[in-house]
Amino acid sequence: MANRAWRAGWLLLAGIALAGPAAAQDAKAGRDKAQMCVVCHGVDGIAVAPNAPNLAGENAAYIVAQLEAFRSGKRTHEQMSIIAADLQDADIADLARWYSLIKVVATPPDLD
Amino acid sequence: MANRAWRAGWLLLAGIALAGPAAAQDAKAGRDKAQMCVVCHGVDGIAVAPNAPNLAGENAAYIVAQLEAFRSGKRTHEQMSIIAADLQDADIADLARWYSLIKVVATPPDLD
Repeated sequence: MANRAWRAGWLLLAGIALAGPAAAQDAKAGRDKAQMCVVCHGVDGIAVAPNAPNLAGENAAYIVAQLEAFRSGKRTHEQMSIIAADLQDADIADLARWYSLIKVVATPPDLD
Repeated sequence: MANRAWRAGWLLLAGIALAGPAAAQDAKAGRDKAQMCVVCHGVDGIAVAPNAPNLAGENAAYIVAQLEAFRSGKRTHEQMSIIAADLQDADIADLARWYSLIKVVATPPDLD
Protein backbone atom coordinates (compact mmCIF):
# COMPACT_ATOMS: atom_id res chain seq x y z
CA MET A 1 0.00 0.00 0.00
CA ALA A 2 2.82 2.39 0.96
CA ASN A 3 4.69 1.19 -2.13
CA ARG A 4 1.70 2.02 -4.28
CA ALA A 5 1.43 5.49 -2.71
CA TRP A 6 5.13 6.16 -3.46
CA ARG A 7 4.69 5.05 -7.04
CA ALA A 8 1.67 7.31 -7.43
CA GLY A 9 3.72 10.17 -6.00
CA TRP A 10 6.57 9.63 -8.43
CA LEU A 11 4.19 9.35 -11.35
CA LEU A 12 2.59 12.63 -10.28
CA LEU A 13 5.98 14.37 -10.10
CA ALA A 14 7.01 12.95 -13.44
CA GLY A 15 3.74 14.18 -14.91
CA ILE A 16 4.34 17.71 -13.62
CA ALA A 17 7.90 17.68 -14.97
CA LEU A 18 6.71 16.52 -18.39
CA ALA A 19 3.90 19.08 -18.43
CA GLY A 20 6.39 21.91 -17.85
CA PRO A 21 7.63 22.45 -21.41
CA ALA A 22 4.15 21.93 -22.85
CA ALA A 23 2.79 24.60 -20.52
CA ALA A 24 5.44 27.10 -21.62
CA GLN A 25 3.13 28.46 -24.24
CA ASP A 26 4.55 31.43 -26.03
CA ALA A 27 2.05 34.22 -26.51
CA LYS A 28 4.41 36.14 -28.80
CA ALA A 29 4.91 33.08 -30.99
CA GLY A 30 1.15 32.68 -30.96
CA ARG A 31 0.68 36.27 -32.11
CA ASP A 32 3.07 35.64 -35.00
CA LYS A 33 1.43 32.37 -35.96
CA ALA A 34 -2.00 34.03 -35.78
CA GLN A 35 -1.16 36.09 -38.88
CA MET A 36 -2.76 33.33 -40.93
CA CYS A 37 -5.95 33.67 -38.85
CA VAL A 38 -6.55 37.43 -39.11
CA VAL A 39 -8.25 37.34 -42.52
CA CYS A 40 -11.29 35.68 -40.95
CA HIS A 41 -10.82 36.07 -37.17
CA GLY A 42 -9.59 39.69 -37.20
CA VAL A 43 -6.39 41.26 -35.92
CA ASP A 44 -7.69 41.37 -32.33
CA GLY A 45 -9.62 38.11 -32.50
CA ILE A 46 -12.91 39.82 -33.33
CA ALA A 47 -14.11 38.01 -36.43
CA VAL A 48 -14.40 39.88 -39.70
CA ALA A 49 -15.85 36.96 -41.68
CA PRO A 50 -19.54 36.30 -40.90
CA ASN A 51 -19.05 32.54 -40.64
CA ALA A 52 -16.06 32.78 -38.29
CA PRO A 53 -16.18 33.01 -34.49
CA ASN A 54 -14.52 35.63 -32.32
CA LEU A 55 -11.41 34.22 -30.65
CA ALA A 56 -10.54 37.18 -28.42
CA GLY A 57 -10.47 36.16 -24.77
CA GLU A 58 -11.46 32.59 -25.56
CA ASN A 59 -10.45 30.08 -22.94
CA ALA A 60 -7.18 28.43 -24.04
CA ALA A 61 -8.55 24.96 -23.31
CA TYR A 62 -11.46 25.58 -25.65
CA ILE A 63 -9.22 26.76 -28.50
CA VAL A 64 -6.92 23.75 -28.03
CA ALA A 65 -9.90 21.39 -28.06
CA GLN A 66 -11.34 22.91 -31.24
CA LEU A 67 -8.05 23.01 -33.17
CA GLU A 68 -7.40 19.39 -32.18
CA ALA A 69 -10.93 18.51 -33.29
CA PHE A 70 -10.36 20.16 -36.69
CA ARG A 71 -6.99 18.42 -36.99
CA SER A 72 -8.40 15.00 -36.16
CA GLY A 73 -11.46 15.47 -38.34
CA LYS A 74 -13.90 15.28 -35.40
CA ARG A 75 -15.01 18.79 -36.31
CA THR A 76 -15.01 19.88 -39.94
CA HIS A 77 -14.94 23.21 -41.75
CA GLU A 78 -13.97 24.08 -45.29
CA GLN A 79 -10.99 26.25 -44.32
CA MET A 80 -10.21 25.16 -40.76
CA SER A 81 -9.88 21.47 -41.62
CA ILE A 82 -7.11 22.37 -44.07
CA ILE A 83 -5.39 24.88 -41.78
CA ALA A 84 -5.47 22.69 -38.67
CA ALA A 85 -4.08 19.67 -40.52
CA ASP A 86 -0.63 21.29 -40.56
CA LEU A 87 -0.57 22.49 -36.95
CA GLN A 88 1.80 20.96 -34.42
CA ASP A 89 0.85 20.70 -30.73
CA ALA A 90 3.15 23.65 -29.97
CA ASP A 91 1.43 25.79 -32.63
CA ILE A 92 -1.95 25.01 -31.10
CA ALA A 93 -0.70 25.83 -27.61
CA ASP A 94 0.85 29.12 -28.76
CA LEU A 95 -2.27 30.21 -30.66
CA ALA A 96 -4.49 29.31 -27.72
CA ARG A 97 -2.24 31.25 -25.36
CA TRP A 98 -2.26 34.35 -27.57
CA TYR A 99 -6.02 34.51 -28.05
CA SER A 100 -6.75 33.74 -24.41
CA LEU A 101 -4.68 36.76 -23.31
CA ILE A 102 -6.76 39.25 -25.32
CA LYS A 103 -9.06 40.97 -22.84
CA VAL A 104 -12.73 41.29 -23.77
CA VAL A 105 -15.39 43.47 -22.23
CA ALA A 106 -19.00 42.64 -23.09
CA THR A 107 -21.89 45.10 -22.91
CA PRO A 108 -25.39 43.67 -23.39
CA PRO A 109 -27.87 45.81 -25.37
CA ASP A 110 -30.48 47.85 -23.53
CA LEU A 111 -33.68 46.15 -24.67
CA ASP A 112 -36.08 47.35 -21.99
CA MET B 1 -37.27 39.94 -72.19
CA ALA B 2 -39.41 42.59 -70.51
CA ASN B 3 -41.71 39.80 -69.35
CA ARG B 4 -38.77 37.97 -67.79
CA ALA B 5 -37.62 41.16 -66.02
CA TRP B 6 -41.11 41.65 -64.58
CA ARG B 7 -41.21 38.09 -63.36
CA ALA B 8 -37.78 38.50 -61.72
CA GLY B 9 -39.03 41.68 -60.05
CA TRP B 10 -42.09 39.97 -58.62
CA LEU B 11 -40.06 37.02 -57.41
CA LEU B 12 -37.69 39.45 -55.66
CA LEU B 13 -40.58 41.24 -53.95
CA ALA B 14 -42.14 37.94 -52.91
CA GLY B 15 -38.79 36.85 -51.50
CA ILE B 16 -38.48 40.00 -49.42
CA ALA B 17 -42.04 39.58 -48.11
CA LEU B 18 -41.39 35.96 -47.15
CA ALA B 19 -38.07 36.82 -45.51
CA GLY B 20 -39.77 39.45 -43.33
CA PRO B 21 -41.16 37.24 -40.53
CA ALA B 22 -38.04 35.04 -40.47
CA ALA B 23 -35.87 38.13 -40.13
CA ALA B 24 -37.96 39.46 -37.26
CA GLN B 25 -35.73 37.78 -34.74
CA ASP B 26 -36.62 38.71 -31.24
CA ALA B 27 -33.64 39.66 -29.14
CA LYS B 28 -35.74 39.78 -25.97
CA ALA B 29 -37.03 36.27 -26.61
CA GLY B 30 -33.44 35.25 -27.24
CA ARG B 31 -32.36 36.74 -23.92
CA ASP B 32 -35.08 34.74 -22.16
CA LYS B 33 -34.21 31.53 -23.98
CA ALA B 34 -30.51 32.08 -23.20
CA GLN B 35 -31.20 31.42 -19.52
CA MET B 36 -30.35 27.78 -20.21
CA CYS B 37 -27.01 28.85 -21.68
CA VAL B 38 -25.69 31.06 -18.86
CA VAL B 39 -24.34 28.23 -16.71
CA CYS B 40 -21.56 27.64 -19.25
CA HIS B 41 -21.61 30.67 -21.55
CA GLY B 42 -22.09 33.33 -18.84
CA VAL B 43 -24.80 35.94 -18.34
CA ASP B 44 -23.21 38.33 -20.85
CA GLY B 45 -21.97 35.63 -23.22
CA ILE B 46 -18.49 35.52 -21.71
CA ALA B 47 -17.95 31.85 -20.95
CA VAL B 48 -17.58 30.70 -17.37
CA ALA B 49 -16.91 27.04 -18.21
CA PRO B 50 -13.38 26.41 -19.54
CA ASN B 51 -14.59 24.18 -22.37
CA ALA B 52 -17.25 26.63 -23.57
CA PRO B 53 -16.77 29.48 -26.05
CA ASN B 54 -17.68 33.12 -25.55
CA LEU B 55 -20.84 33.99 -27.44
CA ALA B 56 -20.91 37.75 -26.80
CA GLY B 57 -20.88 39.68 -30.06
CA GLU B 58 -20.69 36.53 -32.13
CA ASN B 59 -21.97 36.92 -35.67
CA ALA B 60 -25.57 35.69 -35.79
CA ALA B 61 -24.87 33.61 -38.91
CA TYR B 62 -22.10 31.75 -37.09
CA ILE B 63 -24.30 30.96 -34.08
CA VAL B 64 -27.10 29.75 -36.35
CA ALA B 65 -24.67 27.53 -38.27
CA GLN B 66 -23.23 25.99 -35.10
CA LEU B 67 -26.59 25.35 -33.40
CA GLU B 68 -27.86 23.77 -36.62
CA ALA B 69 -24.70 21.66 -36.79
CA PHE B 70 -25.21 20.46 -33.20
CA ARG B 71 -28.88 19.77 -33.94
CA SER B 72 -28.12 17.78 -37.09
CA GLY B 73 -25.22 15.91 -35.52
CA LYS B 74 -22.62 17.40 -37.89
CA ARG B 75 -20.90 18.88 -34.83
CA THR B 76 -21.03 17.03 -31.54
CA HIS B 77 -20.57 17.97 -27.91
CA GLU B 78 -21.65 16.22 -24.74
CA GLN B 79 -24.03 18.97 -23.61
CA MET B 80 -24.71 20.92 -26.79
CA SER B 81 -25.84 17.92 -28.80
CA ILE B 82 -28.59 17.32 -26.23
CA ILE B 83 -29.56 20.99 -25.87
CA ALA B 84 -29.65 21.72 -29.60
CA ALA B 85 -31.78 18.66 -30.35
CA ASP B 86 -34.82 20.40 -28.87
CA LEU B 87 -34.33 23.81 -30.51
CA GLN B 88 -36.72 25.08 -33.17
CA ASP B 89 -35.53 27.34 -35.98
CA ALA B 90 -37.12 30.32 -34.21
CA ASP B 91 -35.24 29.50 -30.99
CA ILE B 92 -31.95 29.41 -32.89
CA ALA B 93 -32.72 32.71 -34.64
CA ASP B 94 -33.67 34.38 -31.35
CA LEU B 95 -30.58 33.14 -29.52
CA ALA B 96 -28.33 34.19 -32.39
CA ARG B 97 -29.95 37.63 -32.45
CA TRP B 98 -29.48 38.11 -28.70
CA TYR B 99 -25.83 37.12 -28.57
CA SER B 100 -24.96 39.07 -31.71
CA LEU B 101 -26.28 42.29 -30.14
CA ILE B 102 -23.92 42.11 -27.14
CA LYS B 103 -21.12 44.57 -27.84
CA VAL B 104 -17.55 43.37 -27.28
CA VAL B 105 -14.39 45.40 -27.02
CA ALA B 106 -11.10 43.50 -27.33
CA THR B 107 -7.77 44.69 -25.96
CA PRO B 108 -4.68 42.69 -26.92
CA PRO B 109 -2.01 42.22 -24.25
CA ASP B 110 1.10 44.37 -24.29
CA LEU B 111 3.79 41.75 -24.97
CA ASP B 112 6.60 43.98 -26.20
